[in-house]
Amino acid sequence: MRPGLLDRLPAVVNIGLPWFCDGIRAAGGSALQVEWRPPALSPEVMAVFRRHADTIAAANQTAVARIMAARPHLAGMGIARDCIPGMTPDTLLHAGPPVTWEQMCGPMRGAVMGALLHEKRAASPDEAERLAASGAVRFAPCHEHAAVGPMAGIISSSMPVFVVEDIEHGTRAHCTMNEGLGKVLRYGAYGADVIERLRWMERTLYPALQAGLERLGAVDLRALIAQALHMGDEVHNRNRAATSLFYRAVAPALVETCRPDTAAAVLRFIDRNDHFFLNLSMAACKASLDAARGIPASSIAVAMARNGTEFGVQVSGTGDAWFTAPAPVPDALFFPGFSKADANPDIGDSAITETGGLGGFAIAAAPAIVQFVGGTAQDASGFTLAMYEITAAEHGAYRIPSLDFRGTPVGIDVIKVARTGIRPFIDTGVAHREPGVGQVGAGVVEAPIEPFLAAAEALALALASPPGKEQSCALMTS
Amino acid sequence: MRPGLLDRLPAVVNIGLPWFCDGIRAAGGSALQVEWRPPALSPEVMAVFRRHADTIAAANQTAVARIMAARPHLAGMGIARDCIPGMTPDTLLHAGPPVTWEQMCGPMRGAVMGALLHEKRAASPDEAERLAASGAVRFAPCHEHAAVGPMAGIISSSMPVFVVEDIEHGTRAHCTMNEGLGKVLRYGAYGADVIERLRWMERTLYPALQAGLERLGAVDLRALIAQALHMGDEVHNRNRAATSLFYRAVAPALVETCRPDTAAAVLRFIDRNDHFFLNLSMAACKASLDAARGIPASSIAVAMARNGTEFGVQVSGTGDAWFTAPAPVPDALFFPGFSKADANPDIGDSAITETGGLGGFAIAAAPAIVQFVGGTAQDASGFTLAMYEITAAEHGAYRIPSLDFRGTPVGIDVIKVARTGIRPFIDTGVAHREPGVGQVGAGVVEAPIEPFLAAAEALALALASPPGKEQSCALMTS
Repeated sequence: MRPGLLDRLPAVVNIGLPWFCDGIRAAGGSALQVEWRPPALSPEVMAVFRRHADTIAAANQTAVARIMAARPHLAGMGIARDCIPGMTPDTLLHAGPPVTWEQMCGPMRGAVMGALLHEKRAASPDEAERLAASGAVRFAPCHEHAAVGPMAGIISSSMPVFVVEDIEHGTRAHCTMNEGLGKVLRYGAYGADVIERLRWMERTLYPALQAGLERLGAVDLRALIAQALHMGDEVHNRNRAATSLFYRAVAPALVETCRPDTAAAVLRFIDRNDHFFLNLSMAACKASLDAARGIPASSIAVAMARNGTEFGVQVSGTGDAWFTAPAPVPDALFFPGFSKADANPDIGDSAITETGGLGGFAIAAAPAIVQFVGGTAQDASGFTLAMYEITAAEHGAYRIPSLDFRGTPVGIDVIKVARTGIRPFIDTGVAHREPGVGQVGAGVVEAPIEPFLAAAEALALALASPPGKEQSCALMTS
Repeated sequence: MRPGLLDRLPAVVNIGLPWFCDGIRAAGGSALQVEWRPPALSPEVMAVFRRHADTIAAANQTAVARIMAARPHLAGMGIARDCIPGMTPDTLLHAGPPVTWEQMCGPMRGAVMGALLHEKRAASPDEAERLAASGAVRFAPCHEHAAVGPMAGIISSSMPVFVVEDIEHGTRAHCTMNEGLGKVLRYGAYGADVIERLRWMERTLYPALQAGLERLGAVDLRALIAQALHMGDEVHNRNRAATSLFYRAVAPALVETCRPDTAAAVLRFIDRNDHFFLNLSMAACKASLDAARGIPASSIAVAMARNGTEFGVQVSGTGDAWFTAPAPVPDALFFPGFSKADANPDIGDSAITETGGLGGFAIAAAPAIVQFVGGTAQDASGFTLAMYEITAAEHGAYRIPSLDFRGTPVGIDVIKVARTGIRPFIDTGVAHREPGVGQVGAGVVEAPIEPFLAAAEALALALASPPGKEQSCALMTS
């Protein structure tokens, strides 16, 4: 921290959510809330949206109808190389939009090194680092391979994955099993304990869960998430209820298919990690949102994801393009000994939960999370209520008790984000910025506005220049 | 129902919680809210309370401090005749204040008959009924034998019970295992399926859980309940989270101590009954509240209980006396085919949860319950907020997320109830009024005011006439 910066009480000008002022004022500082709005979209872009308003509205209704009609089920498990489309032995999938080794942040580099050690493609961290930098590793976003990964989000070819299928549209999504908290691969740790745990997960946890799930049959994740929202979870930073319900569902089948010592070890592993369900909630959202991709003229976001360097958004009506900006650093409750100076910029595919109307969008269901960073239950409701301003629908299945069981805000409309300047509110974990350290906190963050402006402009361009006509690049300069 | 009563829209005068008007108005009826207050305590009684105000306040602080300091743990299991003090082979414990066979309501009679069949003291329902009426059965309240029972609350000598111990004060409380929903003993059913389930619980469920709990060690019920309140439970009519957390705690130990098929059957039994934890939350409250009994001058209620005929309250400063009035019929969501005309008056020891600051007193944590009977999340908060008016403290461990983690209202002060006319708000299940039928609904009810007035007057009498002086009976005629 700059010397002298906090010698006196801070005076702050805030241009984001007004709530950020409250903590400063409560601590005796002075804070001024400025009703700043981002530069409006250009008159040309706005004119395109006005001209195509009915088309856009109809496309968005189709998109949110598909998202809400999705019925994601946990269908089973498999090995990444066998299940994930396009997965080759030299592929490492990662969170967020595309990123090169050179651009990768510390925790993602650490996780890449850990994965190469786990795959036995390197014998030491140094060797792993050299290999990763050599060009011999094919890096690709999880999102482009029907997968999602929390934090660094690294998936390598031999890792076991859950297979989630939306039985309404047939869309599939994949995710690894959650490792637990602290020093774990997804937060960039790659020590011997991390690799040993990954091995145990592959050799013991995976076959046990696979057998149990096979006996149990498909697990209705939408129903489970709907219940968890009534039990204080928003299934991003709080998954205690969802993990409990999943545990209840799978335990009897596990007991009937495994050796008792294995069943007990597996149950203890899940019981000690209230975030075990996180990966499944992410895959459930991914499967639901992928069903809404590629609808011409739709301004609904189908993915928000961060690679720790950049934040990116993909939109239904603009194909596979990523619209990106530098990832912000979250506000967080830091573990003892750490501060915001240690924090890596925001990272992970877990913002797929917010994209699906959960996580920060459903934070009114889980006020404990806002308490982390000094907020109140009323603040939590306020954040959710603000998200209705930038979404196209209220979810038919996911409902919030404290808002009288109102459906969660779902279907982020990038045009509404661009018009209002209200940025998506995201719950998040915080990784140390150096590789090898791990988690240092948990908190909240607002998405940067630029990717939403860029996405809106690209959509306007597509609307103004249907295929076959010459594209009007002038629209891009707002 | 009286013919013609509902031929036109009803016009209602309401003297209870204003919310009862809302449903009538929503249905198009007219409702007048009258700010009626019960007859005030007599000037003589009020004078006694004023004279002893400091003594009462200090005694009440002692009482609530003991209630909140209690640390109820599930210590293990045993058979009723071996664990419960004063339990003889011919004893049947029941819910609520003392009641004779002649006064017993239908569902309690049904449960008594079922227990006699289960104990093989009768071979048919007719024989059981004759035996119960013969005087050969010793009926006693659970509350007078360190026990609590939901609904009919029947505990017979061979039934397995949980042993809950408050490790702060050494107080113990006992309860049976919850049988599930529908046609079950506690709702007055006594068919062959009911008796067969009781037998399975005795021969399979009990030894399995006992062995598992022995391996696991004591379970901290206060910590578990505190978590469940953050997960949408009020641990009376909603126990899904608490049951899930209990399940997670016990499952690995069960797997390690039982045959796999037994462990799987036990886990499935618990998984299928979200109310499995109810009996434990009741025993946790009973143990906590018994620690506050017998404090001279304290006006804090230590038990509220109903036997299906009468509602009764016991108060710390008035010893073992019960103050009673006829039990009211709950407002409820009735199962298809049933209505309020089928409902038995309120029954069960489960109001011990409200006495301990949970259940209806914590309903802001579980708005889904109010939804049953047409209420909103705001109504739920309103009910909890009203209960702060009649309680002496806010619980230090039990907190409500939607009220910014405010402690639940705890320590019902009968003087405050008598003064304000605000009646304790209770969540409850509803039994059919005939024996043998079972549950017909679930809802809410307000305690009758009379027992609280009588308890306040008795306390005033005790304060005015300390032991050794002649008692002034004039005070009793207010």
